[in-house]
Amino acid sequence: MSWQLTLDHLFDLARGAALLGSGGGGDPYVGRLMVERALREGARVTVWDLDEVPDEALVVPTAMMGAPTVMVEKIPSGGEGVHALRTLERHLGREATATMPIECGGINSTMPLVVAARTGKPVVDADGMGRAFPELQMETFHVLGVSGSPMAIANEQGDVVLVTAHDNRAMEWLARGVTVRMGGASLIAEYAMDGATARRVSIPGTLSLGIRVGRAIREARERHRDPIEGLAEALQPSGYGPPRILFEGKVEDVLRRTTGGFVRGSARIRPFAPGPALSISFQNEHLIAELDGQVLALVPDLICVLEAESAEPVTTEGLRYGQRVRVIAITPPTIMRTPAALEVFGPGAFGLPHAYAAVAEVA
Amino acid sequence: MSWQLTLDHLFDLARGAALLGSGGGGDPYVGRLMVERALREGARVTVWDLDEVPDEALVVPTAMMGAPTVMVEKIPSGGEGVHALRTLERHLGREATATMPIECGGINSTMPLVVAARTGKPVVDADGMGRAFPELQMETFHVLGVSGSPMAIANEQGDVVLVTAHDNRAMEWLARGVTVRMGGASLIAEYAMDGATARRVSIPGTLSLGIRVGRAIREARERHRDPIEGLAEALQPSGYGPPRILFEGKVEDVLRRTTGGFVRGSARIRPFAPGPALSISFQNEHLIAELDGQVLALVPDLICVLEAESAEPVTTEGLRYGQRVRVIAITPPTIMRTPAALEVFGPGAFGLPHAYAAVAEVA
Repeated sequence: MSWQLTLDHLFDLARGAALLGSGGGGDPYVGRLMVERALREGARVTVWDLDEVPDEALVVPTAMMGAPTVMVEKIPSGGEGVHALRTLERHLGREATATMPIECGGINSTMPLVVAARTGKPVVDADGMGRAFPELQMETFHVLGVSGSPMAIANEQGDVVLVTAHDNRAMEWLARGVTVRMGGASLIAEYAMDGATARRVSIPGTLSLGIRVGRAIREARERHRDPIEGLAEALQPSGYGPPRILFEGKVEDVLRRTTGGFVRGSARIRPFAPGPALSISFQNEHLIAELDGQVLALVPDLICVLEAESAEPVTTEGLRYGQRVRVIAITPPTIMRTPAALEVFGPGAFGLPHAYAAVAEVA
Repeated sequence: MSWQLTLDHLFDLARGAALLGSGGGGDPYVGRLMVERALREGARVTVWDLDEVPDEALVVPTAMMGAPTVMVEKIPSGGEGVHALRTLERHLGREATATMPIECGGINSTMPLVVAARTGKPVVDADGMGRAFPELQMETFHVLGVSGSPMAIANEQGDVVLVTAHDNRAMEWLARGVTVRMGGASLIAEYAMDGATARRVSIPGTLSLGIRVGRAIREARERHRDPIEGLAEALQPSGYGPPRILFEGKVEDVLRRTTGGFVRGSARIRPFAPGPALSISFQNEHLIAELDGQVLALVPDLICVLEAESAEPVTTEGLRYGQRVRVIAITPPTIMRTPAALEVFGPGAFGLPHAYAAVAEVA
């Protein structure tokens, strides 16, 4: 069933997407403002269930690319995503039927909505990461054999670059270089595919999931209840495991470098009572949570930092000394935990010397 | 009059282009080998005078991009230039009538010949630099208002990138980033223009010039004569000034870093008799020659280092401690010394705090 996006959806989505971003993906706040303005000006955004995309439709995912630290300061005008999409359409000689998120966490849950609002194209309720990941080949689209190329990369200056690479890792490498030269952030259109393929390779319902997750946090806050229960209910229909609380404490130290087009670093969180500190490492997104040398959670499980009081998701660029936080982990759907998927975005893909174990099963 | 390139032409061209490269542009030896093989295999390369290019012809210059230090080690297979050209043709929706060099110095005097040999397209006897320069906007094409975009960039992996930038400096900036990610060297097609435009914005006869310069050096060597006189005769019909001998001595020190996609550095040359040393600074090409704080020659004048005995041109990556060399300077044609041209590739464009003065007029 297709449905219309409302402002209420949008506000919940921005909060839910921040959680699904696993600390990265860029703060959805910026994207929310852009869609909010479009909706207030009368634009309509129609959301299609993955099921109802016609087999022969051309689905072109759109997204922002770059380091989240840069994205929050280099705010797009809104036209860049449309420019990337139109350039790719011209290159393919065919108009896109719909757009779709590549990731449901962070700013990219809202970027395709900006494109949808400006072009009148529907946006498909699905994505290729089921969270956020730092690199373009880290997609179920790639795992399941779709070519990301040709892709288009646009900036606010009107520059546009088309990359056709011999594989998706080379595409990521070249596109990252272009994005760095564009100042560290760009808007992209990639992984163009037909509707039948989109159904085969995407994670369904993750836009709605973001809305449900955001709503659960909001409602728990309004009712002064712990959000964890509501979160579990929001996650379950999409095949995610229940949230597991890993740690509670105070942010003691944050190391963060924006380098090679990524933000890399780590955070140390000290417990409220005496005891060892939790360490979290990230490349845009949180990758691993360790306590006293013991691994508590590992990518692709979502490792999320929430403000202790409000359960507001905290992104890596928002981590500050002294914040009181709660760290949770969520196991993603099965499609993201196959051997082929783990090869692309499991611990080894980030150079971590640990075998993946789902926190939902360990718990 | 159109003419056929012979092996004799090619050998002279490789030497002449090394001199016109002003120390940079990449060693033409690699390109010579590629064209030589094609000619020996029966390929024919037809050269068109700029005058005979039809007004409505589509001229697409092709070239290698990158740091000369990388170019001599990352040798192209020969197909990359054709891939770049074909990609740009498809993007433009039109086949190129002919190709053309963007620079007549260094490896790029021969790269379009490789494309010509493989595609059967003629190559135009003209270029946009009248020597070699390190950046893509440093072209009379750019000075006289031609857009370099859209441009295509191809590598040996089969990757190809199309850049459409809002101006030619942005094109250079983005294309350089792509080339660095491609390992520091790539093959490009850019500044597509019609024949009438090519006649308005190009420096005519610079392919023949390279052949004449190379022949002058060869003949002087065969006849045990000083090549300077022959060089002057070779240069004069193309509007270049006579070669002026700046210095003779022994290479004492070379600093060279390959950074940001360029090779930058300086060389110090000690005179045979006691006295101050000559200092030459370069960004791919030689930019300035100074003696004891006094400027002897400045870009866009060609500053060329020749082996003292053989008059063989020495490129910056070939400079070695102990080499006995002769340094000469040549003033390029008027089209390269207009205020608009000097703004693009005069001393200020390289951050040098000196006003340009032609060595031919100072001499």
